[in-house]
Amino acid sequence: MDDMTRTEQALTGAIAHVDGPGAPPGLAEAIRYSVFPGGARIRPRLCLAVAQACAEDRPALSDAAAASIELLHCASLVHDDLPCFDDAEMRRGKPSVHLAYGERLAVLAGDALIVLAFETLVRDGVGAPERLPALVRIVGQSVGMPSGIAAGQAWECEPCVALTDYQRAKTGALFAAATMAGAASAGYEPGPWRGLGEQIGEAYQVADDIRDVAATADEIGKPVGRDAALGRPSAAHELGIDGAVARLKQLLGNAIETVPNCPGRDDLRATILKEAQQFLPAKILRRAA
Amino acid sequence: MDDMTRTEQALTGAIAHVDGPGAPPGLAEAIRYSVFPGGARIRPRLCLAVAQACAEDRPALSDAAAASIELLHCASLVHDDLPCFDDAEMRRGKPSVHLAYGERLAVLAGDALIVLAFETLVRDGVGAPERLPALVRIVGQSVGMPSGIAAGQAWECEPCVALTDYQRAKTGALFAAATMAGAASAGYEPGPWRGLGEQIGEAYQVADDIRDVAATADEIGKPVGRDAALGRPSAAHELGIDGAVARLKQLLGNAIETVPNCPGRDDLRATILKEAQQFLPAKILRRAA
Repeated sequence: MDDMTRTEQALTGAIAHVDGPGAPPGLAEAIRYSVFPGGARIRPRLCLAVAQACAEDRPALSDAAAASIELLHCASLVHDDLPCFDDAEMRRGKPSVHLAYGERLAVLAGDALIVLAFETLVRDGVGAPERLPALVRIVGQSVGMPSGIAAGQAWECEPCVALTDYQRAKTGALFAAATMAGAASAGYEPGPWRGLGEQIGEAYQVADDIRDVAATADEIGKPVGRDAALGRPSAAHELGIDGAVARLKQLLGNAIETVPNCPGRDDLRATILKEAQQFLPAKILRRAA
Repeated sequence: MDDMTRTEQALTGAIAHVDGPGAPPGLAEAIRYSVFPGGARIRPRLCLAVAQACAEDRPALSDAAAASIELLHCASLVHDDLPCFDDAEMRRGKPSVHLAYGERLAVLAGDALIVLAFETLVRDGVGAPERLPALVRIVGQSVGMPSGIAAGQAWECEPCVALTDYQRAKTGALFAAATMAGAASAGYEPGPWRGLGEQIGEAYQVADDIRDVAATADEIGKPVGRDAALGRPSAAHELGIDGAVARLKQLLGNAIETVPNCPGRDDLRATILKEAQQFLPAKILRRAA
């Protein structure tokens, strides 16, 4: 089964628990809408690719880790789109959750997705309880304080932003969780896998900055030009598009070098390079070639 | 050490992790403000009372469970007070979090508190990893979907509310988690402890309805008359104040009968009765005597 199919199945299994007896139907629907259909599912697929490279012996646990990370990503998108933050109208090619279901259900959908992420990790992790504490820590670190996604979003409320802290928390943390959780779910020590996730996360952030400047809304399913409109730091503004594409390539080269020793190291490197091709629309890659 | 001191110490320990290197200072401050100073801390103290009645053998784990439940309670208050929900101006005798720190930090403080609750459970639970899966499940169920606090708040967005589902999710679930997690942290089977928590939770909800009608804002640290203003179901409106007080006493009587067999059963019953005296200001209790 390919990683995309595994990811969708794991998410479908996780979300099924939302519809239990006595569930308020509006929130259940808003949660599904937040998760399906998805985007590229790049974080959970990275998690599964690392687990495979580490010769995963507990695929159900790797699936749970991957689903948990994607649920947290979806939660962060829903809250980030709220009127008090980006006030975004479109996400993944359709109206954002608060426009479709109202602001209250958008707040609650984000909350419930965070809870579901931890429940999913534990529900499918019962076969290997000794690996759970590390997994919960990895996942928690990547979304909470002091250096997870919530911390990253909170830097947007500070008069003076520490750029490295901001980008590492807002984007890098969940990519680091993807590689670390993939390794930990397979029984590997997670620490050595942090760097790989952080490098890929930084590359992805640079690609996102480039897309925001150079792509069209149709190509990426959300409005473009938001970084400039919101006064956000952007590699594309700092380095120009060609400079940013060069930086992206450098980061990916570093990432490839960073892959820790594991049985499937070569395959993992090839997968990362192939995936990275899809960070940017082909016309931008051609332009910068 | 009494339960209040244990609760405050456990919360202080949990919150200390929020200030790690690279933490955005505004969010760190908003999180502290959301948790300290607290209210009666009734849920974590109930959790600890049950753990003691079950002859707790892992007090650090019971502390973690208690702190986790209170952090989730604080998260729910912060999000429930947001402009899109109750738009509350006061909480625990001071401006609500979104008034003090802005709406964005209030959303993020709630998010970060949910994450911290799960991290706390696992951080202090490393000594007894075999008890963690049950604890994470108990805590998750009480705040997520289909029947936790988020589900309870979501019923407020439905045109037609199933009253039992609403109250059980919005108030009962976290009380049930308190008794169940207290038992599970001490190595007891949590299932038999659900009923006790649900009965105390329902009693507390009735007391809250009465306070909203009969107390003053100074007495309870938040505005009164909100249930009527927001069109919420209320036992005090349905049964009148004296009828609601009678119902409260009946529920507490049932709760006392429900306490499962355990070494400290008699002490736990006495504690519950003593605590329940404080559900209502003395003048209301006198009036209904």
